[in-house]
Amino acid sequence: MKTHYGDDSPIAAFATTPGNSALTLIRCSGKGAVEMAASVFAPGTIAQAAGNTVIHGWVVSPNEKSKIDEVLVSVFRAPKSYTGEDSLDICCHGGLSAGKAVMETLKTAGFRDALPGEFTFRAFMNGKLDLTRSESVMELVCAKTETSRRHAVARLSGALEAEINEIKKMLVEVLSGAEIFLDYDEDEIEADADEIAGKLPKQETALAALARLNKLAASWQYERIYQEGAAVVIAGRPNAGKSSLFNLLLKEDRSIVTEFPGTTRDWIEAWISIEGIPIRLIDTAGLRDSADSVEKIGVERSRKLLQEADVVLYLIDGTQGVTSADREQLAEESFTTELHGEEREKRKDGDERITESSELSKRLLVLWNKCDVAPMPADASFAANRVIGISAKTGEGLAELCAAIARKLKCTQQATDDVQTAALGSARQKKLVDTAAAALEHALALAAKEEPLDLIAPLLREAVNALGEITGEVSTADILEEMFSNFCVGK
Amino acid sequence: MKTHYGDDSPIAAFATTPGNSALTLIRCSGKGAVEMAASVFAPGTIAQAAGNTVIHGWVVSPNEKSKIDEVLVSVFRAPKSYTGEDSLDICCHGGLSAGKAVMETLKTAGFRDALPGEFTFRAFMNGKLDLTRSESVMELVCAKTETSRRHAVARLSGALEAEINEIKKMLVEVLSGAEIFLDYDEDEIEADADEIAGKLPKQETALAALARLNKLAASWQYERIYQEGAAVVIAGRPNAGKSSLFNLLLKEDRSIVTEFPGTTRDWIEAWISIEGIPIRLIDTAGLRDSADSVEKIGVERSRKLLQEADVVLYLIDGTQGVTSADREQLAEESFTTELHGEEREKRKDGDERITESSELSKRLLVLWNKCDVAPMPADASFAANRVIGISAKTGEGLAELCAAIARKLKCTQQATDDVQTAALGSARQKKLVDTAAAALEHALALAAKEEPLDLIAPLLREAVNALGEITGEVSTADILEEMFSNFCVGK
Repeated sequence: MKTHYGDDSPIAAFATTPGNSALTLIRCSGKGAVEMAASVFAPGTIAQAAGNTVIHGWVVSPNEKSKIDEVLVSVFRAPKSYTGEDSLDICCHGGLSAGKAVMETLKTAGFRDALPGEFTFRAFMNGKLDLTRSESVMELVCAKTETSRRHAVARLSGALEAEINEIKKMLVEVLSGAEIFLDYDEDEIEADADEIAGKLPKQETALAALARLNKLAASWQYERIYQEGAAVVIAGRPNAGKSSLFNLLLKEDRSIVTEFPGTTRDWIEAWISIEGIPIRLIDTAGLRDSADSVEKIGVERSRKLLQEADVVLYLIDGTQGVTSADREQLAEESFTTELHGEEREKRKDGDERITESSELSKRLLVLWNKCDVAPMPADASFAANRVIGISAKTGEGLAELCAAIARKLKCTQQATDDVQTAALGSARQKKLVDTAAAALEHALALAAKEEPLDLIAPLLREAVNALGEITGEVSTADILEEMFSNFCVGK
Repeated sequence: MKTHYGDDSPIAAFATTPGNSALTLIRCSGKGAVEMAASVFAPGTIAQAAGNTVIHGWVVSPNEKSKIDEVLVSVFRAPKSYTGEDSLDICCHGGLSAGKAVMETLKTAGFRDALPGEFTFRAFMNGKLDLTRSESVMELVCAKTETSRRHAVARLSGALEAEINEIKKMLVEVLSGAEIFLDYDEDEIEADADEIAGKLPKQETALAALARLNKLAASWQYERIYQEGAAVVIAGRPNAGKSSLFNLLLKEDRSIVTEFPGTTRDWIEAWISIEGIPIRLIDTAGLRDSADSVEKIGVERSRKLLQEADVVLYLIDGTQGVTSADREQLAEESFTTELHGEEREKRKDGDERITESSELSKRLLVLWNKCDVAPMPADASFAANRVIGISAKTGEGLAELCAAIARKLKCTQQATDDVQTAALGSARQKKLVDTAAAALEHALALAAKEEPLDLIAPLLREAVNALGEITGEVSTADILEEMFSNFCVGK
């Protein structure tokens, strides 16, 4: 039986990461959810509980009536809940087993696993959030730096929704203007004809709307990097000090969150924050240094990482100087070629950052490591880039390196901390803003050529619809499913 | 300013693991905690909120009044809360930034970071839980398998508390019997003297109590392994298939929780469950295979892992047969010697498991890998252990291997699923039960030698006190701080 978005059956999901924590939160929602949960709750009952109350007790197995875990249950009554449905937050003990056992019990009682983003999907369907705010929920969860969080909160508060709605209102004005003309014969409106020759009705409004759309579209350039982060890869020959630099950058950054290699990945990576930019720092040490039978796979993976990197830190072992092996690696195809077709296609949606910077010099920082014992030659440079002297051991040159990374990411000068300014939060929104802007530009161009309004009006309608799709006013089930399925489960 | 357990100032801590989850829970407690949190909450106020109610709103910065995160706040009023104090659970958005920003804001408002276990410490001090139940909270959080969870829940429900109190009652009876005699001259009680010659007063009760203490003490043998888990280390020569076996065991076990190496550790480990026993599976592949400059460190670490392992799985590459290198490694000191002084001291508290099994044959399983392509010779054995044929590639022999690991851990035959039977949950409890049992035995021995009661009574009092210390009826600030500081923060 395929489950699907759009019903109101009782669902349950972990809302917190299972781990060695004090508590685990399980979120439940749906028609009859409270009564269903009540069947595995004792002593007493939660079935009659009022909304926004918390009840203490035990989750018990429905058959044996054995105790599963001591819990606090928060009951919410429709429509006063996140989803707009009857809901519960069940606060169990932390760790791995208690939450799992409670979840099993809930499923025995009739709950099904929630689909990714299904809680927020229901919140949207029940009119609790528009789409831009729904998306900001996920952004907020994924926000890796304080700057990212502030921007997501602004969207959650409705800054983007308000901006989109204002622009849409302007375009509707322009469109109504055009449609008034469509309702009449050309003769009847001849008096106004001069006024609008070569122009849209309400041309000024249209131009102002276009400017605001373009400003929004431009915001994605830096918002994307704040929301998704940038990949910074450390490369270089064995013993150049890659792992030491990795550890140094981690140590310097107090807000580190480490993610370590799975069994299918052989490199080590961690998230760090440089000037508020979330950076996925990748150490390729394990890939190229190994001399075992999987060497070939390692080189392949290494190449892929380098190709996809936003910035490559290439370490030269200062005690060795620039060796022929360094020159060879720096000249390798992986550094210099642009992305191949497929990857390029995959990453290009509205973002020229990757393709633009695919050439070596644009995203490479060459570092002269061990400068504490092997001083860097003055004016060392590589492919028109000044080489930065560092010591992964003493920390010398670290501040300069961080500043250089931030500059490479071209974010600092464009990014804004003014969270009152609406900015885009997803590739989906960017695509729709582009659609709206393109349609509006097309309309303006046709008007300039004095083309008839019945050719122009559909373009204006297209622009209005694209904006409606951003907030979810105009939407189809397919688009919604696609969007919410990218959420994490429990949200 | 040193913070310390025992005050009632407002404290705050993350109660869930920060991560890529939908929600993050922050727990607050202490005198004035609700009013303090109200100063950074808007719109409206939570200061007047009734206990056990949930209020929706925003955490806002106290100065700028900028929005930090949209939250649900559950308010609890003393004494109806976990700690017995005024408390709040603040449910923020998940991820890394939102919770962190809310926590910063709470600290600006006046909350301090909670010490490890401080919430449960306060619950104990306010009479909400005895010590055995306090400890079971931590056990439950750490429980890695369903069996571990069931045992911890039994203790949380008070099964151990009840058993300790019953045994203590029996000993108090014996002690009162003895103290009655102490109040009289020997002449006056001569009539009864025959009755108690060579015996304690209420000798039967004393013996029954001793039997129950011994049964409790014995329970720690298997409870320890269910609560703390066993270390199983995979060793063998390069290319013997260590990583394949590691992955196979992980894949087979649907309840896996992986923990990956930090920057200071070079091996890979993961928790798996075999017959309900939590097992920390360790792959030493990265340690011995590498031929780089840190080889020496690797060998040292490997040796330490092997020394501390509860079970060592030594893989022989079947296609090579038993090589001289295998024989050499198996004969190495690290496999065969007992633990050195310090480690032995560190791990011995009440548990002979480690030292007992330190000899090679007791904790070693030799595996003939690749048996799908290189059939194992019949009756292959090593140091009196039958060699097990497996194929890490096809999964052949896996069931036999798991059964053999469980047998090695000597748990299956002793462990009980009867959670009605009280069992010990911590080394602290075991030590105190041992103290009580030793004192009682000593008292019985003195009585058998017809020693005077004024020598015997203090021993009985010592036994009663030790049991009182288990539940916390008798306790000192030092002992409590020591105990709760081993908890996780937020509990």
